[in-house]
Amino acid sequence: MTRLADVARAAGVSMSTASRALSRPDLVASDTRMRVLDAVQRLGFQVNPAARALTSGKTGLLAMCVPTLSNPYFAPIIAGAQQTAEAADRHLTVVVTEGSARREAEVLARVSRQVDGFIIVAPRGGDADLLEFGATTPAVIAERVVPGLASVVIDTPAGLRDLMNVLKADGHRRIAYLSGPAGSWMDALRCDALRDSLGDGGELSVIGPLPPTFRAGVEAVEEILERRATAVVAYNSLLAVGAVYQLRNVGVRVPDDVSVASADDLAALGLGAPEITTLHFDPAALGAAGVDMLVQLIDGREPEVPHVRIPAHLRVRSSEGWAAAEG
Amino acid sequence: MTRLADVARAAGVSMSTASRALSRPDLVASDTRMRVLDAVQRLGFQVNPAARALTSGKTGLLAMCVPTLSNPYFAPIIAGAQQTAEAADRHLTVVVTEGSARREAEVLARVSRQVDGFIIVAPRGGDADLLEFGATTPAVIAERVVPGLASVVIDTPAGLRDLMNVLKADGHRRIAYLSGPAGSWMDALRCDALRDSLGDGGELSVIGPLPPTFRAGVEAVEEILERRATAVVAYNSLLAVGAVYQLRNVGVRVPDDVSVASADDLAALGLGAPEITTLHFDPAALGAAGVDMLVQLIDGREPEVPHVRIPAHLRVRSSEGWAAAEG
Repeated sequence: MTRLADVARAAGVSMSTASRALSRPDLVASDTRMRVLDAVQRLGFQVNPAARALTSGKTGLLAMCVPTLSNPYFAPIIAGAQQTAEAADRHLTVVVTEGSARREAEVLARVSRQVDGFIIVAPRGGDADLLEFGATTPAVIAERVVPGLASVVIDTPAGLRDLMNVLKADGHRRIAYLSGPAGSWMDALRCDALRDSLGDGGELSVIGPLPPTFRAGVEAVEEILERRATAVVAYNSLLAVGAVYQLRNVGVRVPDDVSVASADDLAALGLGAPEITTLHFDPAALGAAGVDMLVQLIDGREPEVPHVRIPAHLRVRSSEGWAAAEG
Repeated sequence: MTRLADVARAAGVSMSTASRALSRPDLVASDTRMRVLDAVQRLGFQVNPAARALTSGKTGLLAMCVPTLSNPYFAPIIAGAQQTAEAADRHLTVVVTEGSARREAEVLARVSRQVDGFIIVAPRGGDADLLEFGATTPAVIAERVVPGLASVVIDTPAGLRDLMNVLKADGHRRIAYLSGPAGSWMDALRCDALRDSLGDGGELSVIGPLPPTFRAGVEAVEEILERRATAVVAYNSLLAVGAVYQLRNVGVRVPDDVSVASADDLAALGLGAPEITTLHFDPAALGAAGVDMLVQLIDGREPEVPHVRIPAHLRVRSSEGWAAAEG
């Protein structure tokens, strides 16, 4: 293994100059810096992360905290974050809280000494707890807004307002919302967006909270039919395809009898049916923006844009159509 | 922040004794060790991971390397590994290779200095490359067997042989296998298991390789019908529910016209339909066994059982039935 002493010798500088050229290049003359970097490259020298952590107080590790990995929604967010972290010469680690506020607090505390900062996706803890955590540890919140902390969200609520306008124009008045996991801030916002844009004479039935799974979509169909909804909006694609699967199973036509739409973009992962109306957005951009902001915080700067909003665009497909005539 | 000096003072021992009591407890008298541990607990002392890494050469970090997170199959494996790692006072980091052998090699090389060892799940690299990597870095292979390296697999091939016996007994002769991702070692083994147990007069049509998604299951239906298969076995639940969804969509009855079964256990995550015949197993046990073996390797021991096999049990449900009579 190449040591820093080898690099110093090859560059014809002292150990301390070689070290400074790597850790504080601004303090070293540019031709000296070039000689050191040249030697680093030639000899294949790699900075020992443990040594770097001890001298700089930084580990080069960023943590992305997600409630679960069994919802594939988080996969492209993590992929986007990982790519951006690598481009910034950091490594992203993923920690999973399995959805409870208590476990989230435990996990954050446990990992906080091993990483430089956190992107906390869809946190379950209260605003005050998150603010307190963010006061001592660089932290960016994703898929939620916590006043006082940097945040990035996908604007699915705006997309759902567009969807509601299409449903109203097509004559839908009784709409069912298959709501997402209990305690999800974004689910509450999506539900509010639908309710706010419902307009006069409309009726919104909220079914749930539900786990965001295919199975829960299958099982929600009985209640959809009881409420006599002509349109269903689901928190995610898995709920939507589960509902379509079971509606057809019991002889209900989509969209002739019931229209179905989904508020996320799992279709891009092959987890939606080709014909389901959905919102389209770039989840990798959420992860990337989170890492960008976090790196700025770790470097002691304020993020240029403290609240990033990623647009969600409505894609109307054949699962949505005119409301069925009153039976 | 509590420092080791505070712990030493509170325990009435020297700094070096306090340090040794934590890092090499076997070298310290048991009552001294108890006094130190008591002080650690009372004062809320936490080992500084960077300092520990520099003195022991270990970081306390384990890496689980998975091909993708958009297949929820890996979520409970990661959860099982994370729990076991925490119980062993380690932290699990997840790295994603996005499925290519080249990227896998890059990721392993990049992260290998920051972690104590790897559990590589469903690796894409060749046996020789993995053996070479395992010669310098503690590594356990999951969902594949690489001779010379410790490994843990779920015995889905045995479960598929049981399934094939049920299909044969129910009169199925033309069977379609919706195969999994290109380059998957486990997919090849599942396919072989079906072919080996097919028996005289049976015909196995392999459709794929396919991405393990709902959408790919939908799109495979045309070929299933062309091959005139009376039974479909899918690499995973998402392919299976996609196929059932689309079969019903085009007016084919399940199981009256076509039986459908799945080779994994995503049903437990709510990603299968309640009626689909499937294999049942404990994916968390795979992650847990991988961490157990890895910790033994890191500690310089040979794993007690170098090749762990986790059983998969057939659960026959209503998506499987008698073969349709010849049309």
